[in-house]
Amino acid sequence: MSAHISEQFDIELAQVRDHFMKMGGLVEALVRDAATALVNHDAELARQVRERDAEVNRLEIEIDELCVHTIARRQPAASDLRTVISIMKASTDLERIGDEACRIAKMTQSLAQLEYPSDQYRDFREMAALTEAMVAASLDAFARQDADGALAVIASDEAINNCYNAIVQDRGTSMRADSSGVDRGMNVIWAARALERIGDHAKNISEYLVFQVKGEDVRHTAKGQRNI
Amino acid sequence: MSAHISEQFDIELAQVRDHFMKMGGLVEALVRDAATALVNHDAELARQVRERDAEVNRLEIEIDELCVHTIARRQPAASDLRTVISIMKASTDLERIGDEACRIAKMTQSLAQLEYPSDQYRDFREMAALTEAMVAASLDAFARQDADGALAVIASDEAINNCYNAIVQDRGTSMRADSSGVDRGMNVIWAARALERIGDHAKNISEYLVFQVKGEDVRHTAKGQRNI
Repeated sequence: MSAHISEQFDIELAQVRDHFMKMGGLVEALVRDAATALVNHDAELARQVRERDAEVNRLEIEIDELCVHTIARRQPAASDLRTVISIMKASTDLERIGDEACRIAKMTQSLAQLEYPSDQYRDFREMAALTEAMVAASLDAFARQDADGALAVIASDEAINNCYNAIVQDRGTSMRADSSGVDRGMNVIWAARALERIGDHAKNISEYLVFQVKGEDVRHTAKGQRNI
Repeated sequence: MSAHISEQFDIELAQVRDHFMKMGGLVEALVRDAATALVNHDAELARQVRERDAEVNRLEIEIDELCVHTIARRQPAASDLRTVISIMKASTDLERIGDEACRIAKMTQSLAQLEYPSDQYRDFREMAALTEAMVAASLDAFARQDADGALAVIASDEAINNCYNAIVQDRGTSMRADSSGVDRGMNVIWAARALERIGDHAKNISEYLVFQVKGEDVRHTAKGQRNI
Protein backbone atom coordinates (compact mmCIF):
# COMPACT_ATOMS: atom_id res chain seq x y z
CA MET A 1 0.00 0.00 0.00
CA SER A 2 2.73 2.41 0.99
CA ALA A 3 4.75 1.49 -2.14
CA HIS A 4 1.63 2.02 -4.20
CA ILE A 5 1.10 5.50 -2.73
CA SER A 6 4.71 6.37 -3.32
CA GLU A 7 4.49 5.17 -6.93
CA GLN A 8 1.35 7.22 -7.49
CA PHE A 9 3.06 10.17 -5.91
CA ASP A 10 5.98 9.83 -8.32
CA ILE A 11 3.62 9.70 -11.29
CA GLU A 12 1.77 12.81 -10.14
CA LEU A 13 4.99 14.64 -9.33
CA ALA A 14 6.25 13.89 -12.85
CA GLN A 15 3.02 15.36 -14.18
CA VAL A 16 3.45 18.50 -12.09
CA ARG A 17 7.04 18.83 -13.35
CA ASP A 18 5.87 18.44 -16.95
CA HIS A 19 3.37 21.23 -16.49
CA PHE A 20 6.01 23.39 -14.87
CA MET A 21 8.47 22.87 -17.72
CA LYS A 22 5.76 23.57 -20.28
CA MET A 23 4.92 26.81 -18.46
CA GLY A 24 8.65 27.60 -18.34
CA GLY A 25 8.98 27.11 -22.09
CA LEU A 26 6.08 29.47 -22.75
CA VAL A 27 7.49 32.11 -20.41
CA GLU A 28 10.94 31.87 -22.02
CA ALA A 29 9.36 32.51 -25.41
CA LEU A 30 7.39 35.48 -24.04
CA VAL A 31 10.55 37.12 -22.66
CA ARG A 32 12.43 36.55 -25.93
CA ASP A 33 9.57 37.84 -28.06
CA ALA A 34 8.93 40.84 -25.83
CA ALA A 35 12.60 41.89 -26.08
CA THR A 36 12.64 41.27 -29.85
CA ALA A 37 9.47 43.30 -30.29
CA LEU A 38 10.98 46.22 -28.38
CA VAL A 39 14.27 46.44 -30.28
CA ASN A 40 12.45 46.07 -33.62
CA HIS A 41 9.58 48.47 -32.80
CA ASP A 42 7.29 45.55 -33.61
CA ALA A 43 3.96 46.55 -32.05
CA GLU A 44 2.16 43.52 -33.52
CA LEU A 45 4.55 41.05 -31.84
CA ALA A 46 4.14 43.01 -28.61
CA ARG A 47 0.38 42.64 -28.90
CA GLN A 48 0.76 38.88 -29.34
CA VAL A 49 2.97 38.63 -26.24
CA ARG A 50 0.25 40.22 -24.13
CA GLU A 51 -2.31 37.86 -25.62
CA ARG A 52 -0.22 34.71 -25.08
CA ASP A 53 0.30 35.53 -21.39
CA ALA A 54 -3.24 34.22 -20.71
CA GLU A 55 -2.01 30.65 -21.33
CA VAL A 56 0.74 31.16 -18.73
CA ASN A 57 -1.86 32.30 -16.19
CA ARG A 58 -4.02 29.27 -16.97
CA LEU A 59 -1.08 26.92 -16.41
CA GLU A 60 -0.26 28.51 -13.04
CA ILE A 61 -3.75 27.77 -11.75
CA GLU A 62 -3.59 24.24 -13.16
CA ILE A 63 -0.25 23.57 -11.44
CA ASP A 64 -1.62 24.88 -8.15
CA GLU A 65 -4.60 22.56 -8.37
CA LEU A 66 -2.47 19.56 -9.30
CA CYS A 67 -0.14 20.26 -6.37
CA VAL A 68 -2.93 20.63 -3.81
CA HIS A 69 -4.57 17.39 -4.99
CA THR A 70 -1.28 15.52 -4.97
CA ILE A 71 -0.51 16.60 -1.42
CA ALA A 72 -4.03 15.83 -0.20
CA ARG A 73 -4.25 12.41 -1.86
CA ARG A 74 -0.67 11.16 -1.46
CA GLN A 75 0.24 12.80 1.85
CA PRO A 76 3.94 12.94 1.00
CA ALA A 77 6.64 12.95 3.66
CA ALA A 78 8.49 16.19 4.43
CA SER A 79 11.11 16.00 1.67
CA ASP A 80 8.61 15.14 -1.11
CA LEU A 81 6.30 17.77 0.29
CA ARG A 82 9.06 20.36 -0.01
CA THR A 83 9.47 19.43 -3.66
CA VAL A 84 5.80 19.99 -4.44
CA ILE A 85 5.71 23.24 -2.52
CA SER A 86 8.86 24.49 -4.25
CA ILE A 87 7.28 23.87 -7.63
CA MET A 88 4.13 25.74 -6.58
CA LYS A 89 6.20 28.69 -5.44
CA ALA A 90 8.41 28.63 -8.51
CA SER A 91 5.34 28.63 -10.75
CA THR A 92 4.23 31.89 -9.11
CA ASP A 93 7.59 33.36 -10.17
CA LEU A 94 7.13 32.06 -13.71
CA GLU A 95 3.75 33.74 -13.82
CA ARG A 96 5.30 37.03 -12.66
CA ILE A 97 7.97 36.72 -15.38
CA GLY A 98 5.08 36.53 -17.85
CA ASP A 99 3.68 39.74 -16.31
CA GLU A 100 7.04 41.47 -16.74
CA ALA A 101 7.23 40.35 -20.39
CA CYS A 102 3.82 41.99 -20.82
CA ARG A 103 5.17 45.18 -19.26
CA ILE A 104 7.99 45.20 -21.84
CA ALA A 105 5.40 44.62 -24.55
CA LYS A 106 3.42 47.58 -23.25
CA MET A 107 6.52 49.81 -23.34
CA THR A 108 7.11 48.60 -26.91
CA GLN A 109 3.68 49.83 -27.93
CA SER A 110 4.69 53.33 -26.71
CA LEU A 111 8.23 53.24 -28.13
CA ALA A 112 7.06 52.05 -31.57
CA GLN A 113 5.35 55.42 -32.02
CA LEU A 114 8.69 57.25 -31.76
CA GLU A 115 11.39 57.50 -34.42
CA TYR A 116 13.74 54.49 -34.52
CA PRO A 117 16.85 55.49 -32.51
CA SER A 118 20.37 55.49 -33.97
CA ASP A 119 21.71 53.44 -31.03
CA GLN A 120 19.28 50.62 -31.98
CA TYR A 121 18.69 49.93 -28.27
CA ARG A 122 22.17 48.44 -27.91
CA ASP A 123 22.10 48.68 -24.08
CA PHE A 124 18.70 47.04 -23.82
CA ARG A 125 19.70 44.27 -26.30
CA GLU A 126 22.71 43.35 -24.16
CA MET A 127 20.68 43.25 -20.98
CA ALA A 128 17.91 41.24 -22.65
CA ALA A 129 20.42 38.64 -23.89
CA LEU A 130 21.79 38.18 -20.37
CA THR A 131 18.31 37.95 -18.87
CA GLU A 132 17.09 35.44 -21.45
CA ALA A 133 20.14 33.28 -20.75
CA MET A 134 19.47 33.49 -17.01
CA VAL A 135 15.85 32.40 -17.39
CA ALA A 136 16.92 29.51 -19.64
CA ALA A 137 19.62 28.45 -17.16
CA SER A 138 17.18 28.53 -14.24
CA LEU A 139 14.79 26.24 -16.15
CA ASP A 140 17.63 23.91 -17.20
CA ALA A 141 18.76 23.62 -13.60
CA PHE A 142 15.18 22.91 -12.58
CA ALA A 143 14.74 20.22 -15.23
CA ARG A 144 18.00 18.51 -14.24
CA GLN A 145 17.52 19.08 -10.48
CA ASP A 146 20.95 20.65 -10.63
CA ALA A 147 21.67 22.58 -7.42
CA ASP A 148 25.11 23.75 -8.60
CA GLY A 149 23.57 25.06 -11.81
CA ALA A 150 20.98 26.87 -9.69
CA LEU A 151 23.68 28.44 -7.51
CA ALA A 152 25.40 29.69 -10.70
CA VAL A 153 22.09 31.28 -11.77
CA ILE A 154 21.82 32.99 -8.39
CA ALA A 155 25.33 34.39 -8.78
CA SER A 156 24.63 35.61 -12.33
CA ASP A 157 21.93 37.99 -11.12
CA GLU A 158 24.57 40.52 -10.18
CA ALA A 159 25.65 40.99 -13.82
CA ILE A 160 22.04 41.78 -14.71
CA ASN A 161 21.74 44.26 -11.86
CA ASN A 162 24.94 45.98 -13.00
CA CYS A 163 23.58 46.18 -16.53
CA TYR A 164 20.38 47.70 -15.22
CA ASN A 165 22.17 50.27 -13.07
CA ALA A 166 24.29 51.29 -16.08
CA ILE A 167 21.16 51.79 -18.20
CA VAL A 168 19.50 53.94 -15.53
CA GLN A 169 22.68 56.01 -15.18
CA ASP A 170 23.28 56.48 -18.93
CA ARG A 171 19.69 57.19 -19.82
CA GLY A 172 19.41 59.57 -16.86
CA THR A 173 22.46 61.48 -18.11
CA SER A 174 20.95 61.69 -21.60
CA MET A 175 17.63 62.95 -20.27
CA ARG A 176 19.34 65.61 -18.18
CA ALA A 177 21.30 66.76 -21.25
CA ASP A 178 18.33 66.79 -23.60
CA SER A 179 14.84 66.76 -22.15
CA SER A 180 13.30 65.98 -25.57
CA GLY A 181 14.42 62.38 -24.99
CA VAL A 182 12.53 61.95 -21.70
CA ASP A 183 9.78 59.77 -23.21
CA ARG A 184 12.14 57.34 -24.85
CA GLY A 185 14.51 57.34 -21.89
CA MET A 186 11.79 56.55 -19.41
CA ASN A 187 10.28 53.80 -21.54
CA VAL A 188 13.67 52.13 -21.96
CA ILE A 189 14.30 52.39 -18.22
CA TRP A 190 10.88 50.81 -17.49
CA ALA A 191 11.60 47.98 -19.90
CA ALA A 192 15.06 47.46 -18.37
CA ARG A 193 13.44 47.45 -14.94
CA ALA A 194 11.17 44.65 -16.12
CA LEU A 195 14.24 42.66 -17.23
CA GLU A 196 15.83 43.27 -13.85
CA ARG A 197 12.72 41.90 -12.15
CA ILE A 198 12.74 38.90 -14.48
CA GLY A 199 16.28 38.23 -13.27
CA ASP A 200 15.03 38.38 -9.66
CA HIS A 201 12.32 35.84 -10.43
CA ALA A 202 14.80 33.50 -12.18
CA LYS A 203 16.90 33.79 -9.04
CA ASN A 204 13.90 32.98 -6.83
CA ILE A 205 13.20 29.87 -8.94
CA SER A 206 16.82 28.78 -8.48
CA GLU A 207 16.61 29.40 -4.72
CA TYR A 208 13.56 27.14 -4.51
CA LEU A 209 15.45 24.47 -6.44
CA VAL A 210 18.45 24.62 -4.09
CA PHE A 211 16.02 24.25 -1.20
CA GLN A 212 14.38 21.28 -2.93
CA VAL A 213 17.61 19.46 -3.73
CA LYS A 214 19.74 20.37 -0.73
CA GLY A 215 17.10 21.22 1.86
CA GLU A 216 19.03 24.45 2.43
CA ASP A 217 17.16 27.74 2.44
CA VAL A 218 19.45 30.25 0.69
CA ARG A 219 16.93 33.07 0.60
CA HIS A 220 18.10 36.18 2.43
CA THR A 221 21.63 34.83 2.78
CA ALA A 222 24.72 36.31 1.13
CA LYS A 223 24.16 33.87 -1.78
CA GLY A 224 20.54 34.75 -2.15
CA GLN A 225 20.45 38.51 -1.55
CA ARG A 226 18.18 40.45 -3.87
CA ASN A 227 19.16 43.78 -5.38
CA ILE A 228 17.01 46.42 -3.68
CA MET B 1 -7.25 9.77 16.92
CA SER B 2 -8.72 11.68 14.01
CA ALA B 3 -10.22 14.28 16.39
CA HIS B 4 -6.86 14.54 18.09
CA ILE B 5 -5.08 15.18 14.79
CA SER B 6 -7.66 17.78 13.82
CA GLU B 7 -7.28 19.53 17.19
CA GLN B 8 -3.50 19.56 16.83
CA PHE B 9 -3.91 20.91 13.32
CA ASP B 10 -6.09 23.75 14.61
CA ILE B 11 -3.50 24.62 17.24
CA GLU B 12 -0.70 24.68 14.68
CA LEU B 13 -2.78 26.62 12.19
CA ALA B 14 -3.49 29.25 14.86
CA GLN B 15 0.26 29.47 15.44
CA VAL B 16 0.91 29.96 11.72
CA ARG B 17 -1.76 32.67 11.60
CA ASP B 18 -0.19 34.41 14.61
CA HIS B 19 3.17 34.47 12.88
CA PHE B 20 1.57 35.76 9.71
CA MET B 21 -0.20 38.60 11.52
CA LYS B 22 2.99 39.50 13.36
CA MET B 23 4.84 39.62 10.04
CA GLY B 24 1.97 41.70 8.62
CA GLY B 25 2.25 44.20 11.47
CA LEU B 26 5.96 44.60 10.88
CA VAL B 27 5.50 45.06 7.16
CA GLU B 28 2.75 47.65 7.71
CA ALA B 29 5.12 49.64 9.92
CA LEU B 30 7.91 49.40 7.33
CA VAL B 31 5.67 50.81 4.59
CA ARG B 32 4.47 53.64 6.81
CA ASP B 33 7.97 54.51 8.01
CA ALA B 34 9.45 54.29 4.51
CA ALA B 35 6.84 56.74 3.20
CA THR B 36 7.30 59.06 6.20
CA ALA B 37 11.07 58.99 5.76
CA LEU B 38 10.72 59.96 2.11
CA VAL B 39 8.40 62.95 2.58
CA ASN B 40 10.49 64.23 5.51
CA HIS B 41 13.89 63.64 3.87
CA ASP B 42 14.66 61.53 6.94
CA ALA B 43 17.67 59.45 5.88
CA GLU B 44 18.12 57.99 9.36
CA LEU B 45 14.57 56.57 9.43
CA ALA B 46 15.16 55.20 5.92
CA ARG B 47 18.29 53.44 7.16
CA GLN B 48 16.31 51.86 10.00
CA VAL B 49 13.64 50.61 7.58
CA ARG B 50 16.29 48.75 5.59
CA GLU B 51 17.69 47.29 8.79
CA ARG B 52 14.33 46.16 10.17
CA ASP B 53 13.49 44.29 6.95
CA ALA B 54 15.78 41.46 8.13
CA GLU B 55 13.19 40.50 10.77
CA VAL B 56 10.52 40.24 8.06
CA ASN B 57 12.75 37.90 6.07
CA ARG B 58 13.37 35.77 9.13
CA LEU B 59 9.63 35.47 9.79
CA GLU B 60 8.96 34.40 6.20
CA ILE B 61 11.35 31.46 6.55
CA GLU B 62 9.86 30.56 9.93
CA ILE B 63 6.31 30.57 8.53
CA ASP B 64 7.42 28.37 5.63
CA GLU B 65 8.96 25.85 8.00
CA LEU B 66 5.93 25.84 10.30
CA CYS B 67 3.62 25.28 7.32
CA VAL B 68 5.67 22.39 5.88
CA HIS B 69 5.82 20.69 9.26
CA THR B 70 2.10 21.17 9.88
CA ILE B 71 1.20 19.65 6.51
CA ALA B 72 3.64 16.74 6.95
CA ARG B 73 2.56 15.92 10.52
CA ARG B 74 -1.17 16.61 10.36
CA GLN B 75 -1.89 15.64 6.75
CA PRO B 76 -4.81 18.02 6.48
CA ALA B 77 -7.69 17.44 4.07
CA ALA B 78 -7.95 19.53 0.92
CA SER B 79 -9.70 22.57 2.41
CA ASP B 80 -7.39 22.86 5.44
CA LEU B 81 -4.46 22.27 3.12
CA ARG B 82 -5.57 25.18 0.95
CA THR B 83 -5.60 27.40 4.02
CA VAL B 84 -2.01 26.54 4.94
CA ILE B 85 -0.83 26.95 1.37
CA SER B 86 -2.61 30.31 1.05
CA ILE B 87 -0.82 31.58 4.14
CA MET B 88 2.55 30.42 2.77
CA LYS B 89 1.89 32.20 -0.50
CA ALA B 90 0.61 35.33 1.19
CA SER B 91 3.72 35.46 3.38
CA THR B 92 5.84 35.59 0.21
CA ASP B 93 3.86 38.67 -0.79
CA LEU B 94 4.39 40.22 2.66
CA GLU B 95 8.11 39.65 2.26
CA ARG B 96 8.04 41.37 -1.14
CA ILE B 97 6.19 44.33 0.39
CA GLY B 98 9.11 44.60 2.82
CA ASP B 99 11.47 44.64 -0.18
CA GLU B 100 9.48 47.45 -1.77
CA ALA B 101 9.55 49.46 1.47
CA CYS B 102 13.34 49.07 1.33
CA ARG B 103 13.34 50.37 -2.24
CA ILE B 104 11.46 53.47 -1.07
CA ALA B 105 13.99 53.85 1.75
CA LYS B 106 16.79 53.63 -0.80
CA MET B 107 15.18 56.36 -2.93
CA THR B 108 14.85 58.46 0.24
CA GLN B 109 18.58 58.25 0.81
CA SER B 110 19.09 59.79 -2.67
CA LEU B 111 16.30 62.37 -2.38
CA ALA B 112 17.46 63.57 1.05
CA GLN B 113 20.60 64.93 -0.63
CA LEU B 114 18.50 67.31 -2.77
CA GLU B 115 16.84 70.56 -1.67
CA TYR B 116 13.44 70.06 0.00
CA PRO B 117 10.82 70.65 -2.71
CA SER B 118 8.10 73.30 -2.46
CA ASP B 119 5.39 70.76 -3.33
CA GLN B 120 6.36 68.75 -0.22
CA TYR B 121 5.78 65.50 -2.18
CA ARG B 122 2.04 66.08 -2.11
CA ASP B 123 1.40 63.51 -4.88
CA PHE B 124 3.50 60.84 -3.19
CA ARG B 125 1.89 61.51 0.21
CA GLU B 126 -1.58 60.91 -1.25
CA MET B 127 -0.55 57.71 -2.95
CA ALA B 128 1.24 56.48 0.18
CA ALA B 129 -1.87 57.08 2.32
CA LEU B 130 -4.00 55.02 -0.08
CA THR B 131 -1.42 52.23 -0.22
CA GLU B 132 -1.00 52.08 3.56
CA ALA B 133 -4.78 51.83 3.94
CA MET B 134 -4.87 49.04 1.36
CA VAL B 135 -2.19 47.02 3.14
CA ALA B 136 -3.99 47.50 6.47
CA ALA B 137 -7.33 46.45 4.93
CA SER B 138 -5.79 43.33 3.38
CA LEU B 139 -4.41 42.29 6.78
CA ASP B 140 -7.71 43.07 8.52
CA ALA B 141 -9.58 40.93 6.02
CA PHE B 142 -7.03 38.16 6.56
CA ALA B 143 -7.35 38.33 10.35
CA ARG B 144 -11.16 38.21 10.18
CA GLN B 145 -11.26 35.70 7.29
CA ASP B 146 -13.48 38.24 5.58
CA ALA B 147 -13.85 37.41 1.88
CA ASP B 148 -16.01 40.46 1.16
CA GLY B 149 -13.40 42.70 2.75
CA ALA B 150 -10.77 41.02 0.59
CA LEU B 151 -12.84 41.63 -2.54
CA ALA B 152 -13.07 45.32 -1.58
CA VAL B 153 -9.26 45.41 -1.25
CA ILE B 154 -8.92 43.86 -4.71
CA ALA B 155 -11.22 46.54 -6.14
CA SER B 156 -9.31 49.36 -4.41
CA ASP B 157 -6.12 48.56 -6.33
CA GLU B 158 -7.43 50.51 -9.29
CA ALA B 159 -7.37 53.81 -7.34
CA ILE B 160 -3.70 53.18 -6.53
CA ASN B 161 -2.90 52.41 -10.14
CA ASN B 162 -4.62 55.64 -11.22
CA CYS B 163 -2.61 57.57 -8.65
CA TYR B 164 0.58 56.01 -9.93
CA ASN B 165 -0.23 56.75 -13.57
CA ALA B 166 -0.95 60.39 -12.66
CA ILE B 167 2.42 60.69 -10.89
CA VAL B 168 4.29 59.22 -13.87
CA GLN B 169 2.44 61.59 -16.22
CA ASP B 170 2.92 64.74 -14.10
CA ARG B 171 6.54 64.08 -13.22
CA GLY B 172 7.26 63.20 -16.87
CA THR B 173 5.79 66.52 -17.98
CA SER B 174 7.93 68.39 -15.40
CA MET B 175 11.08 66.59 -16.49
CA ARG B 176 10.39 67.39 -20.14
CA ALA B 177 9.87 71.06 -19.26
CA ASP B 178 12.94 71.34 -17.03
CA SER B 179 15.63 68.70 -17.30
CA SER B 180 17.30 69.93 -14.08
CA GLY B 181 14.53 68.08 -12.21
CA VAL B 182 15.29 64.69 -13.75
CA ASP B 183 16.97 63.25 -10.64
CA ARG B 184 14.15 64.14 -8.30
CA GLY B 185 11.48 63.21 -10.84
CA MET B 186 12.94 59.79 -11.43
CA ASN B 187 13.41 59.05 -7.74
CA VAL B 188 9.81 60.00 -6.98
CA ILE B 189 8.60 57.83 -9.87
CA TRP B 190 10.66 54.88 -8.57
CA ALA B 191 9.24 55.33 -5.10
CA ALA B 192 5.70 55.59 -6.50
CA ARG B 193 6.37 52.45 -8.52
CA ALA B 194 7.27 50.68 -5.28
CA LEU B 195 3.93 51.79 -3.77
CA GLU B 196 2.14 50.51 -6.84
CA ARG B 197 3.81 47.13 -6.42
CA ILE B 198 2.90 47.11 -2.74
CA GLY B 199 -0.72 47.55 -3.84
CA ASP B 200 -0.32 44.55 -6.17
CA HIS B 201 0.99 42.42 -3.31
CA ALA B 202 -1.86 43.50 -0.99
CA LYS B 203 -4.19 42.46 -3.79
CA ASN B 204 -2.46 39.09 -4.12
CA ILE B 205 -2.86 38.52 -0.38
CA SER B 206 -6.56 39.29 -0.69
CA GLU B 207 -6.89 36.94 -3.66
CA TYR B 208 -5.37 34.13 -1.60
CA LEU B 209 -7.82 34.87 1.18
CA VAL B 210 -10.82 34.72 -1.16
CA PHE B 211 -9.49 31.38 -2.38
CA GLN B 212 -9.11 30.19 1.21
CA VAL B 213 -12.57 31.25 2.34
CA LYS B 214 -14.62 30.66 -0.80
CA GLY B 215 -12.49 28.09 -2.61
CA GLU B 216 -12.79 30.37 -5.65
CA ASP B 217 -9.64 31.30 -7.57
CA VAL B 218 -10.09 34.96 -8.56
CA ARG B 219 -6.60 35.39 -9.96
CA HIS B 220 -6.56 36.37 -13.63
CA THR B 221 -10.29 37.01 -13.67
CA ALA B 222 -11.95 40.38 -14.22
CA LYS B 223 -12.01 40.80 -10.40
CA GLY B 224 -8.38 39.89 -10.00
CA GLN B 225 -6.70 41.49 -13.02
CA ARG B 226 -3.33 43.09 -12.30
CA ASN B 227 -2.31 46.43 -13.76
CA ILE B 228 0.42 45.69 -16.31
